[in-house]
Amino acid sequence: MSMHTTESIAHPAVEDLELGAVLHALSDPVRLQIVAKLAHSDGDHTCGSFGLPVTKSTCTHHFKVLREAGVLTQRQVGTARMNTLRREDLDARFPGLLETVLRAAPGDQPAGS
Amino acid sequence: MSMHTTESIAHPAVEDLELGAVLHALSDPVRLQIVAKLAHSDGDHTCGSFGLPVTKSTCTHHFKVLREAGVLTQRQVGTARMNTLRREDLDARFPGLLETVLRAAPGDQPAGS
Repeated sequence: MSMHTTESIAHPAVEDLELGAVLHALSDPVRLQIVAKLAHSDGDHTCGSFGLPVTKSTCTHHFKVLREAGVLTQRQVGTARMNTLRREDLDARFPGLLETVLRAAPGDQPAGS
Repeated sequence: MSMHTTESIAHPAVEDLELGAVLHALSDPVRLQIVAKLAHSDGDHTCGSFGLPVTKSTCTHHFKVLREAGVLTQRQVGTARMNTLRREDLDARFPGLLETVLRAAPGDQPAGS
């Protein structure tokens, strides 16, 4: 695998966000857990900080799906990839959707440490 | 293929509706179109009445995904299968979700005749 650079991390523009892709991204329990954790905390988080019960490659895949749907932003900081929820973009494009989904989400326990 | 009977059409109970399954069901553009049409009209609709740009078997598949996720009810009337949105069940389980998704859905043009 080649090293990731900031340039290789593509994000869709706000106006290109698609409802179907966002709903699909949110339809997986692990991805929903990631989004809930990002929503309930400020700032950036690395993939490893979520304490998810999945392998690293599965975790990477989930973050990729979320990024490509426009749910979160990823940026490279040294060897880590930092993740931030695109809350304002989602709210602008699909008003109330993120909030409604998070309210409907089960549990909301912290995902690990 | 065997004939479908009313007994063979299973629907999840309200308390068994899962957010992930509902979001997945709504994440497909054709299924979203079906749900929008059901939401904006009263009563039952047959699969054929939606004028969807898909084959009959694809149409049948989409309705099955929607039914199994708990988004709609299907009942057999003679040789036709009538579809009704489970609006109250969805609202009870995931308040505001259906409304928010439909508001965010593109177009909302009538799907055919």
